[in-house]
Amino acid sequence: MARVVVDVMLKPEILDPQGQAVANALPRLGIAGVASVRIGRHVEIEFDGDVDLEKAREIADKLLANPVIEDFEVSVQEAGLGT
Amino acid sequence: MARVVVDVMLKPEILDPQGQAVANALPRLGIAGVASVRIGRHVEIEFDGDVDLEKAREIADKLLANPVIEDFEVSVQEAGLGT
Repeated sequence: MARVVVDVMLKPEILDPQGQAVANALPRLGIAGVASVRIGRHVEIEFDGDVDLEKAREIADKLLANPVIEDFEVSVQEAGLGT
Repeated sequence: MARVVVDVMLKPEILDPQGQAVANALPRLGIAGVASVRIGRHVEIEFDGDVDLEKAREIADKLLANPVIEDFEVSVQEAGLGT
């Protein structure tokens, strides 16, 4: 079954303390060369029938993302981690 | 600059209350036809130099995912939401 994926990320100008915490922990784990880490949400939406990108966009806009501080991206995926 | 994306999702057999809450809210918003919603994390890692998939996999394994309840997927992305 095809599904729609919505990726929600903080806008680039918004500080991401969660991502910074991961980035700061990397040298202590012996991993160098990482410039930045940003963490958002990955949402997989499965439809009863055909995939409906318009509907997915409406869900993202109304429920998944806060448009003041977040951007989102909608795409169709053939198979996912949640399969 | 190319970056690596790590998507972390709960394993299919693990209950996802956050996704279920979104799925249950949809009919109240007038949106029908959605079978399931699952919510995970979307992590964008930017490297100082070339993209290093092996290093990204190590970061995901050590810091980003809990292998007991989560799966992750690593991929290269040319441009992202956080750009």
